[in-house]
Amino acid sequence: MRIDIISVIPEMLESPLGCSILKRAQDKGLAELHVHNLRDYTTNKHRKVDDYPFGGDAGMVIQVEPVDRCISALKAERNYDEVIFTAPDGEILNQSMANSMSMLENIIILCGHYKGVDYRIREHLVTREISIGDYVLTGGEIPAIIIADSIVRLIPGVIGDEQSALSDSFQDNLLEPPVYTRPAEYNGWRVPDILLSGHQARIDEWKHQQSLERTARLRPDLLK
Amino acid sequence: MRIDIISVIPEMLESPLGCSILKRAQDKGLAELHVHNLRDYTTNKHRKVDDYPFGGDAGMVIQVEPVDRCISALKAERNYDEVIFTAPDGEILNQSMANSMSMLENIIILCGHYKGVDYRIREHLVTREISIGDYVLTGGEIPAIIIADSIVRLIPGVIGDEQSALSDSFQDNLLEPPVYTRPAEYNGWRVPDILLSGHQARIDEWKHQQSLERTARLRPDLLK
Repeated sequence: MRIDIISVIPEMLESPLGCSILKRAQDKGLAELHVHNLRDYTTNKHRKVDDYPFGGDAGMVIQVEPVDRCISALKAERNYDEVIFTAPDGEILNQSMANSMSMLENIIILCGHYKGVDYRIREHLVTREISIGDYVLTGGEIPAIIIADSIVRLIPGVIGDEQSALSDSFQDNLLEPPVYTRPAEYNGWRVPDILLSGHQARIDEWKHQQSLERTARLRPDLLK
Repeated sequence: MRIDIISVIPEMLESPLGCSILKRAQDKGLAELHVHNLRDYTTNKHRKVDDYPFGGDAGMVIQVEPVDRCISALKAERNYDEVIFTAPDGEILNQSMANSMSMLENIIILCGHYKGVDYRIREHLVTREISIGDYVLTGGEIPAIIIADSIVRLIPGVIGDEQSALSDSFQDNLLEPPVYTRPAEYNGWRVPDILLSGHQARIDEWKHQQSLERTARLRPDLLK
């Protein structure tokens, strides 16, 4: 899988792309992540990518031209399955979207910034608008990392321990049971006895009950 | 406002904290962001912070001790309003939570990682568990950045243009109207005539209608 991220502050993406799972996926040759500086696709000498909005609003708006030039340059090299725009009013990301996107080959993610992007970009160049949640952020760079991380970790071979990805929250619509590790007692706080009992069948039953109980209490909507 | 982030991969946070609004807020003295490496609070020579879970699960679990030592060291210096844990099964972040958290003074954000953290940390040390959405991520580092960004940008003075933060999506439960900038025509794609008309009252009415229409079509839940 290849993901091309288009941004006006590409340096913001450096450390997240160079760490953890996103780095490991690239090192293993299972994912390619490329960041493109939108300013490299301008034709004016100040490399300006934004301008004032029509109609007298505050804030700056990203212009159509550099985005069109960048996306066209990428499309000239290969076919893309989706051109995703990180938008606060897009479809809200969930695990089943991440699952299906993890099977795509080439994706572009355009990061919004400033007050927004010229709406013609959204009408004519973008194929899918995704929000990561109902809160306002400064730009689309961190949401692009969230989308990339949620997808890339599902590519077979990226996470060493397959079981670990399969048993994550949301994959079965149940929250995970509590987990505990050594020491069995710390500061007077004890691990539940059942987990120390060695009876695997009873432990598994306890975990399942805990999952059901936690889901019913914290996220009853997932059980509907 | 001061935000202390506790992580096992602090280097992942470098570029997002050093760019854009989070940098500007720190440069202006309006926010302090500190990252703490959990491994600095271990007492074993390999600086190991995790161990196998009790009860035979896959994955590694962060231990209570280093987290307790780190949080205790911070609390010895100042009072904290919240100790937030980034958890997939936490309360889902929304704009009103960001609004209220932007008025706090000191916050700790503990980033989850690996298979999770020992549940005793969540029971005894954490005061609030926050999820950024219903999708699985590799760790809590990027969610911590999301939480910090959503909060810090609301601190008065951080965004130069106050109007820009006030008119964002979700602040009035309406999606924003489409925005357009120069040129008025590109590639045959034209800006709506109304925005070029110069009649500010009609433009404002059009924008409001567009907000209502887009909200009703894309996010009817916001109008309830």
